[in-house]
Amino acid sequence: MFLLTSVLVGVVCLLMVWIFKSADGGTQRRKGEPRARAEARPWVDEDLKDSTEVHQVEEDADEWQVSEEEVEHVPFSHTRYPEKEMLKRSQEFYELLNKRRSVRFISNEQVPVEVIDNVIKAAGTAPSGAHTEPWTFVVVKDPDVKHKIREIIEEEEEINYLKRMGPQWVSDLKKLRTNWIKEYLDTAPVLILIFKQVHGFAANGKKKTHYYNEISVSIACGILLAALQMTKTVPKELASIYLLTL
Amino acid sequence: MFLLTSVLVGVVCLLMVWIFKSADGGTQRRKGEPRARAEARPWVDEDLKDSTEVHQVEEDADEWQVSEEEVEHVPFSHTRYPEKEMLKRSQEFYELLNKRRSVRFISNEQVPVEVIDNVIKAAGTAPSGAHTEPWTFVVVKDPDVKHKIREIIEEEEEINYLKRMGPQWVSDLKKLRTNWIKEYLDTAPVLILIFKQVHGFAANGKKKTHYYNEISVSIACGILLAALQMTKTVPKELASIYLLTL
Repeated sequence: MFLLTSVLVGVVCLLMVWIFKSADGGTQRRKGEPRARAEARPWVDEDLKDSTEVHQVEEDADEWQVSEEEVEHVPFSHTRYPEKEMLKRSQEFYELLNKRRSVRFISNEQVPVEVIDNVIKAAGTAPSGAHTEPWTFVVVKDPDVKHKIREIIEEEEEINYLKRMGPQWVSDLKKLRTNWIKEYLDTAPVLILIFKQVHGFAANGKKKTHYYNEISVSIACGILLAALQMTKTVPKELASIYLLTL
Repeated sequence: MFLLTSVLVGVVCLLMVWIFKSADGGTQRRKGEPRARAEARPWVDEDLKDSTEVHQVEEDADEWQVSEEEVEHVPFSHTRYPEKEMLKRSQEFYELLNKRRSVRFISNEQVPVEVIDNVIKAAGTAPSGAHTEPWTFVVVKDPDVKHKIREIIEEEEEINYLKRMGPQWVSDLKKLRTNWIKEYLDTAPVLILIFKQVHGFAANGKKKTHYYNEISVSIACGILLAALQMTKTVPKELASIYLLTL
């Protein structure tokens, strides 16, 4: 009865079901070409690894250049608010986003599909490593499919809580009163599943590496959350529910 | 002369200088408590690892509960736009964000410090694993400090291009015409450095694990980019520059 787009806000965060990962087994590297190790600042080296995988054997260095020639040049246009207006807009945006909460109680009210399309299109404007846009957004409205997704997630989450996360992590989550039961995956009228693409495919079907894919997809998720939060507001009575931030 | 807040937009993406990582060597685990391995869906297991480190030895299970009692309960308030308004707002937000570009040519025009504060506060509303808020934003305006940062980044980026990234990655970046020279780090009036905190500290000084810290910080970056893009706009003539999306 209460949340509208928060239907999605909560769900989005929980459904980073990185499935593409499973389709992509191990890293391959040409023999005799071990990755060069640099000396200074080891964390930079570690950061570069991301979950990016290197497919030098499968890629053709010319493929990216070819596709570039087909891309139309779009002149950059820029506009600016006067300072007073910048200040007002930044303040209002902060206040609006500060009202967002990650919740476990979700409304079953419908949201127009055009709104879903727009927030996903907004997320797709995110920057990405080498402009690979390594994300796939899947919108699910069918109740049976939603329920199957819930079953898969609950099964995995139960293993997380009981085995994978360890006693400290489970203890840290106690104050948030979360568990592996996720009824709201049935309640929400729409689920947006977000997948990271560890690699893409070039025109000839060969694998194309997606650099910094996890960071890129997460940035897109941040923009998606902002877009969802932008679409609501107009007073409405509702119950005070316990606050949870994922 | 041209970009305003894009001063920051471009820089923000480039300056995820994950320094906290360096301060945090290896993982520790209590003897006789190896992390339980589950059977199904290996990528879930891999995803849980994130760059999260487990510090069971150093943590006290009661610490989080103590801090919870000191937190004031804030009733959740929710409002909703009518569908027509939701649609209009989602469309406008997408169109505004679709004008954002990741650029290498940056204006030296000043931005009010209150605007910087507001966009960072907006980013800080992002969800995070177990609500750990594992981010630190550092605002740099001093020209000497900016220049030192540029030197460190260029030094590391040169090693990236010449050694760490490998020939395929460097080739893939050719179409974007990027290299390790980053003059705009001197030009921009403000740099926002974004750090992920691999761990925090409890009241008693013990380490507190930050779950999913990289994903959480990246989501906050997405909201930061959206906030920066929200603060500008009002027609102004400027040169057409080549488009780059990081």
